Amino acid sequence: EIAAAAVDILRPPRPRPLADKRVLITAGPTHEAIDPVRYIANRSSGKQGFAIAAAAQAAGADVTLVSGPVELRDPAGVTVIRVESARDMLHRVEAALPADIAIFAAAVADWRVANEGEQKLKKTSAGMPQLALVENPDILATISKLTDKRPPLVIGFAAETEHLIDNAKAKIARKGCDWIVANDVSPATGVMGGDRNTVHLLTRDGDDIKVDSWPVMTKEQVATELVATIAKTLGKTS
Amino acid sequence: EIAAAAVDILRPPRPRPLADKRVLITAGPTHEAIDPVRYIANRSSGKQGFAIAAAAQAAGADVTLVSGPVELRDPAGVTVIRVESARDMLHRVEAALPADIAIFAAAVADWRVANEGEQKLKKTSAGMPQLALVENPDILATISKLTDKRPPLVIGFAAETEHLIDNAKAKIARKGCDWIVANDVSPATGVMGGDRNTVHLLTRDGDDIKVDSWPVMTKEQVATELVATIAKTLGKTS
Repeated sequence: EIAAAAVDILRPPRPRPLADKRVLITAGPTHEAIDPVRYIANRSSGKQGFAIAAAAQAAGADVTLVSGPVELRDPAGVTVIRVESARDMLHRVEAALPADIAIFAAAVADWRVANEGEQKLKKTSAGMPQLALVENPDILATISKLTDKRPPLVIGFAAETEHLIDNAKAKIARKGCDWIVANDVSPATGVMGGDRNTVHLLTRDGDDIKVDSWPVMTKEQVATELVATIAKTLGKTS
Repeated sequence: EIAAAAVDILRPPRPRPLADKRVLITAGPTHEAIDPVRYIANRSSGKQGFAIAAAAQAAGADVTLVSGPVELRDPAGVTVIRVESARDMLHRVEAALPADIAIFAAAVADWRVANEGEQKLKKTSAGMPQLALVENPDILATISKLTDKRPPLVIGFAAETEHLIDNAKAKIARKGCDWIVANDVSPATGVMGGDRNTVHLLTRDGDDIKVDSWPVMTKEQVATELVATIAKTLGKTS
């Protein structure tokens, strides 16, 4: 017992490189109602965002996770807020600021239905109803372009089926975020909803964008790697 | 031990009123792809269809359950076939015929997207993409109107937010089915995705339609009641 206690004392404390940092993370899909029973969804499982939340918490951060509808349990020690639509998600993200680091891993619906019905949409003899779409709030761009409460490090995700790097570079410029985790979801990779990701990390330094291509990893490994990269970067700049 | 064996012998055998009957059941939502990552879904949990499958199996039937994407485990002793879209579901239902009783409890999407994209749909400066919809196959009507392999008893479900009975009566006539289980899913009832249903059973006898309004029940109770009603009806006619 005394020996065990000595080992515990002698063992270096677990590194907590994100101690005292507030990290805000989004995860999962959003559901956009068409009528009381139908909605538009996407195939995001939420696993990547949840893994990042767990990794950031393990690194000592104070983590808030805003998640769309997923079948995952709350990671231990993380404040989890469940939402449905993109508009819900934006409101809860804004309410969770300020944060030192914001990581937007959710697959937010770009559009919602303009004429959301309060009654169930029915077939009519006039033929098919048209689903008119309107643009959803862009959470990544909105938070990246805040003037007062913009988190010092804003990280977006890009899931692309083609022209991955070019689309991700354009996205950094368009959204005004600092980093993009670009994820190859072309059907050939079979990653959407799966447990592994093929990821490229794009980091902006002024006008310069660096691309770091990672090997195929589990989502937990991507999360650990991303949190380690964040910690290293904060260590350099602080 | 001898006493226990005697009790077993003396105990009346469990009634199996649907022994030797083939029962085909659909359950759950369907997912209709918009592009490789987005789809149109609905809020069906699949619980009602799964409960009916379990009840029919317990009543001695040979049960095939064709289910859309749900988070439910296969009921014991039931042949379960998992599908995604309405077209998948129809194909698997047709392949499962003949059946003595068909119960279509799935919330099949009425429409799918006409221009399903192989690449992820992107925002363009031209503005919002239009989602043109085309009608899905109508599984209930298709099977009800079969001339060769029509099951002797075809039961549909109607989830309605308003004019429940009138819409359900019209549905029996339009689809050509024998019974409709009409389920009140107006937002006030909070039943969609929940564990209880407010159900009215409509049964057609020639041009006559009888309405039997059941008290609020769990989905398991609705299933047991429906299977008991089926067994009673078959007992009368056979």
